[in-house]
Amino acid sequence: MRDVAVIGVGMLPFGKHPDKGLDDMARVAIWDAIRDAGVTAKDIQVVHVGNCLAGLIVGQEAVRGQIILKDCGLGGRPVVNTENACGTGAAAFRGAWLEVASGMYDVALAVGVEKMFIPGNTARSIRALATCSELELSRTGFQYVAYYAMRLRAYMEEYGATVTDFANVVVKDTYNGSLNPYAHHKKALTLEEVLNSRMVADPLTLYMCPSMCDGAGAAILCSVDMAKRFTAKPVVKVKSVAFRASKFSPHGEWDDPHTFTLCADEAYEKAGIGPKDLDVAEVADAVIPMELLLYERLRFCGKGEGSKLIRDGTTRLDGRLPVNTSGGFSIRGHPLGATGLGELAEVVWQLRGEAGPRQVPNAKLGMVHDSGGVVGYDTAACYIMILSR
Amino acid sequence: MRDVAVIGVGMLPFGKHPDKGLDDMARVAIWDAIRDAGVTAKDIQVVHVGNCLAGLIVGQEAVRGQIILKDCGLGGRPVVNTENACGTGAAAFRGAWLEVASGMYDVALAVGVEKMFIPGNTARSIRALATCSELELSRTGFQYVAYYAMRLRAYMEEYGATVTDFANVVVKDTYNGSLNPYAHHKKALTLEEVLNSRMVADPLTLYMCPSMCDGAGAAILCSVDMAKRFTAKPVVKVKSVAFRASKFSPHGEWDDPHTFTLCADEAYEKAGIGPKDLDVAEVADAVIPMELLLYERLRFCGKGEGSKLIRDGTTRLDGRLPVNTSGGFSIRGHPLGATGLGELAEVVWQLRGEAGPRQVPNAKLGMVHDSGGVVGYDTAACYIMILSR
Repeated sequence: MRDVAVIGVGMLPFGKHPDKGLDDMARVAIWDAIRDAGVTAKDIQVVHVGNCLAGLIVGQEAVRGQIILKDCGLGGRPVVNTENACGTGAAAFRGAWLEVASGMYDVALAVGVEKMFIPGNTARSIRALATCSELELSRTGFQYVAYYAMRLRAYMEEYGATVTDFANVVVKDTYNGSLNPYAHHKKALTLEEVLNSRMVADPLTLYMCPSMCDGAGAAILCSVDMAKRFTAKPVVKVKSVAFRASKFSPHGEWDDPHTFTLCADEAYEKAGIGPKDLDVAEVADAVIPMELLLYERLRFCGKGEGSKLIRDGTTRLDGRLPVNTSGGFSIRGHPLGATGLGELAEVVWQLRGEAGPRQVPNAKLGMVHDSGGVVGYDTAACYIMILSR
Repeated sequence: MRDVAVIGVGMLPFGKHPDKGLDDMARVAIWDAIRDAGVTAKDIQVVHVGNCLAGLIVGQEAVRGQIILKDCGLGGRPVVNTENACGTGAAAFRGAWLEVASGMYDVALAVGVEKMFIPGNTARSIRALATCSELELSRTGFQYVAYYAMRLRAYMEEYGATVTDFANVVVKDTYNGSLNPYAHHKKALTLEEVLNSRMVADPLTLYMCPSMCDGAGAAILCSVDMAKRFTAKPVVKVKSVAFRASKFSPHGEWDDPHTFTLCADEAYEKAGIGPKDLDVAEVADAVIPMELLLYERLRFCGKGEGSKLIRDGTTRLDGRLPVNTSGGFSIRGHPLGATGLGELAEVVWQLRGEAGPRQVPNAKLGMVHDSGGVVGYDTAACYIMILSR
């Protein structure tokens, strides 16, 4: 396997884009990435496209990538279509990475795009989001926010985490989002605003919960040896890519160590680093307070110590390990197929020193964690990438 | 890249399975492949799952592979979900092959499964089959059979092919299908029956057209070095995998040479063989008479010579290069996600001398051609694999 670089990234700002089709959204991200990389369309040899709801949202399956790309100036490239729930963007990235790492192709494009917001038809979006349609829609009526509320309630009892800790993650993430032109939500919230917003599922108040948005992200990868041919920018290297899944466990006997931890260990080992070496991380906080559990699972701290990191400011923009500088899933936004590539773009910008007011000084090593869950799996697909300048 | 072997294949007989879910269907094919390969479930490290209509047919997207596999005894394996219209089965195969060829994993499973037949709701199936939903459903009303009828009419005028030639392909393929326990249609038809069946789209009569069915296929791949650890059967090697696509061309200016030809040339070159070296081939005859054009495009003969091969018996079971010994897409059946793995199983059985009454004597080199089209692309995804004993 050869070393791979990310030489260009692009995003359509995440948010509501009811006037745009999947193709319009993808085109913006792709051409931003092409310009950023200094390549021409001709240089791109293969495309991996991540999308996971177009069948149910716009009625397009089977060759969704080709349809999304058809007016994009990339005709004739082999297209791999992929999906893995909330991990779909990372799935497209891993696919493109493997094409280049294996030597199959020299230059690959990863694209993730999702439309989730249907004006006037929230029920259809919600229905499409059921990842195990049989269980969630027909049998249990179980939905994500309720699922995470139960987990967080147990976490409070076991480790003494408080609702204030949870709200302080939101304060941090909304502050970061307020500095990010690509974020869906750009208003910094106070602790009081978060705590006083209406209760959705105890202990989760409204501002701790995700909202729906559309978006697109793209990345261009090539072998490290070729990177300098295309771009004068600092070369961001892919140090490792790890990919894991849990077993199906409908009664909730989760793996210990958690699958995220096994995946992180694999990513650290392959990259030859430890969690203390990281300068910045984007993690998959499906509901915002879950970030505390992710700190533990990704080994940023020990078991039960998640709250400590938010209390002492470690993961704030000015802390030792800033987490979700983009705002994270709920604030930057989480349009499923696009999310992983949005996270990747943020880490690439941080490592190149291009993150503007949310720049982490001298960031050299970053993590992207993207994960797709589903009722019955603690993770149906977990991806962790370590990137370095 | 290292050499890869296919050590096990399995199929659920293609046909109508209204009583079975995607998971039930996949399980049969997967466990047949596991037993055939001599591996245990534990040996399987990664799974690529191909399915392309579950969103529209059963309402399941996002993590369809994990849902399909959840009761299959393969919990905890990373799952890659993929789709590429009629080429979806080959897409899963190529993905699994790249995992092993690159050294990422040692043993990989490729699964393809599709439900197309919904009792009492053919309209829903047809609607789901529109690969470019916007163009086909909303604007042109254009459908596959009409599209192929136009192509074949032009082929008759240009090269003197006759309706009798087209019907004789059906006679050959239904004869092969009558010998295949995995085929959807098992009745050998006479020339008269084919010619006298009702006209669907001139020159295509009913028996020249595809029908809808369900099915599943699976294959287990490992590095050639490891194959003998698992199985005493002849080792089938993957000599080459080629993957191409045409540009989007809504007005029908197709590439010349055709994308299939470029893909075949790549497959031949990587395998170090020529078309004359092949002993058996499975090709993607979306409507049966298209097989004649495929002979040309895959370089089994020169331009305009397709009819010659059916007239002189070259591609019959007892000919020099038997084509579609399984019966092909329309007779063995074409459940989109499963088809490529059904083709692969047939070629593996032929190369191992296990094809029973349809065995090609001493077959050593075989081709699998699988392709997903869509209105506006001559092929949205073409895959060609060369296999050898």
